[in-house]
Amino acid sequence: MASLRGTQQPELSKKLYKIIKSENHAIGAYEAAARERVGIAQQLSEWGEATGDETISEISDKMGVLLAEIAEQEDLYAKALEEYRGVLKQIRNTESSVQPSRDHKVKISDEIAKLKYKEPQNTKIVQLEQELVRAEAQSLVAEAQLSNITRQKFKEAYDHHLAATIERAEKQIILAKHARRLLNLVDDTPIVPGDVHPAFQEVEAARQVITDAEADLREYELNVDPINSNAGNLGVGAMPSNVVRQTESTAYEPSNVVSQTESAAYEPTPYTDVTSPSTNTIDEHRHVSSGSYGTYGEAQSSHPVSDAQRVETLERQQAVEMQQTPHVA
Amino acid sequence: MASLRGTQQPELSKKLYKIIKSENHAIGAYEAAARERVGIAQQLSEWGEATGDETISEISDKMGVLLAEIAEQEDLYAKALEEYRGVLKQIRNTESSVQPSRDHKVKISDEIAKLKYKEPQNTKIVQLEQELVRAEAQSLVAEAQLSNITRQKFKEAYDHHLAATIERAEKQIILAKHARRLLNLVDDTPIVPGDVHPAFQEVEAARQVITDAEADLREYELNVDPINSNAGNLGVGAMPSNVVRQTESTAYEPSNVVSQTESAAYEPTPYTDVTSPSTNTIDEHRHVSSGSYGTYGEAQSSHPVSDAQRVETLERQQAVEMQQTPHVA
Repeated sequence: MASLRGTQQPELSKKLYKIIKSENHAIGAYEAAARERVGIAQQLSEWGEATGDETISEISDKMGVLLAEIAEQEDLYAKALEEYRGVLKQIRNTESSVQPSRDHKVKISDEIAKLKYKEPQNTKIVQLEQELVRAEAQSLVAEAQLSNITRQKFKEAYDHHLAATIERAEKQIILAKHARRLLNLVDDTPIVPGDVHPAFQEVEAARQVITDAEADLREYELNVDPINSNAGNLGVGAMPSNVVRQTESTAYEPSNVVSQTESAAYEPTPYTDVTSPSTNTIDEHRHVSSGSYGTYGEAQSSHPVSDAQRVETLERQQAVEMQQTPHVA
Repeated sequence: MASLRGTQQPELSKKLYKIIKSENHAIGAYEAAARERVGIAQQLSEWGEATGDETISEISDKMGVLLAEIAEQEDLYAKALEEYRGVLKQIRNTESSVQPSRDHKVKISDEIAKLKYKEPQNTKIVQLEQELVRAEAQSLVAEAQLSNITRQKFKEAYDHHLAATIERAEKQIILAKHARRLLNLVDDTPIVPGDVHPAFQEVEAARQVITDAEADLREYELNVDPINSNAGNLGVGAMPSNVVRQTESTAYEPSNVVSQTESAAYEPTPYTDVTSPSTNTIDEHRHVSSGSYGTYGEAQSSHPVSDAQRVETLERQQAVEMQQTPHVA
């Protein structure tokens, strides 16, 4: 039986909760496929040996090596999807946290309406109306945070997802093309009864295929068009940090931000803000919140951020937010 | 509980039986992943609509379309693997059918040895020795058939398998790259409370991404180096048909066959034998047994051969074989 926990999610985050859950099943399926395939690669090599046919034995063994590596890419793909799933969770968590402020606003409005109808002279109405103004202010902040986080993290999540799809595909193409070379080393000219196939002459060529495949895989680099982001402006409390910055620096222009982000996407060094040298604390925080975003290829293929690291980053971010007053109107 | 039927397989086909079974699990995993992913694509579109953010709504809907198509490729991949699995079964069936002739030979040898030890004068020994010669002849044929079928079908199976891997990868790269274009249409510049994001201006651009992806997918052609095969010589009864042909045509050379096969791999029209116009029946049979081999991209991407068709082809092939006397020494 599946868990019923989904029904306990706030209304706002139910849909994303379901997606995150389905992705978990999809990832499980890829892991299962990878596991089966690693086993099959081993079995293929053993079968080849058992045929007693030297050619089939050699080639099936090398084929097994490449098929196991293709399976390994399937597993790395599953791991990368886990990363993307983590980013979706950040949107879902924001959705969950925004629900109470919506509910609170509705609850006060309802109370006011009820009182006005039943006891229109009750002095509590004035008090509730003041509370409603505060609740509306809080709600405005919450909705802006949700909108900002959703757009930023949606882009980040599918940047991860699609880059992982492309990386798996490109690496598997490399491996499969080399594996096809192995097949051409098998001479399938039929023999007559009593004859045997000539001795296998291609041991060296088969070994070379593996060496070439390994070299190509080592040299592989993911090369995709970067996803541009203006979310570098997303400062403390998921609010635009340029509200502060614009008053400090007249040099700020939207096009400026885009070109910065683009260059950040190509450089392995983290994004450095040059327009506002005086807001160091905020900038550092910004690095934490969007460090690996825009440099996916670099960060992803060599050092994927683990779940634990991501949780730590989020906790750190929350701690910073709590120490500072939000820059809101 | 898993079936115990594997243990009832003849020794000779046990290993391949296991591989075919494991591939069934792997295919099931890919089908499950495809199913989940189609669902997620739908859910993503619904989530986007529910956000009330016009930009996210439009882009998540289009993203869903491309993700569903990526999932569809996963499913086509699973179907192509079913094809490859069918070819492995042909090797396994040959292995199973060769086991009795091995067993028969061993049994007669054992009987002779036993009789020679216990009743060396028994006249049955002479009879058994004649039977052994016949059994050995039969076994020689069986082993040659097994070797011929194994090499030919091994190449064919992994030609299918690897071409399917490359096709899935190339199509998913096309789709994922277009999907990344969608992400760049989302402006994630953060807003302050009370503000709303500017109206979505990129409806047309988003629609164009889908149109472009569809066009690229329609124009897609699998282009892999062909797997060369000399198994065109594999005639009736899994024996070389050039035993017949060599006596007819002195123009026959191995290099000749390779170049024929290569050109056959590039042409959509079925392989036509030009060196032996007089052996029409055999040639027709050859078309049946290796029709789609070498023209994988063509046959596979547009009209995958169904299981039913394959069974029919096999049955037809067996019927042809039974009507003809094998060309063996």
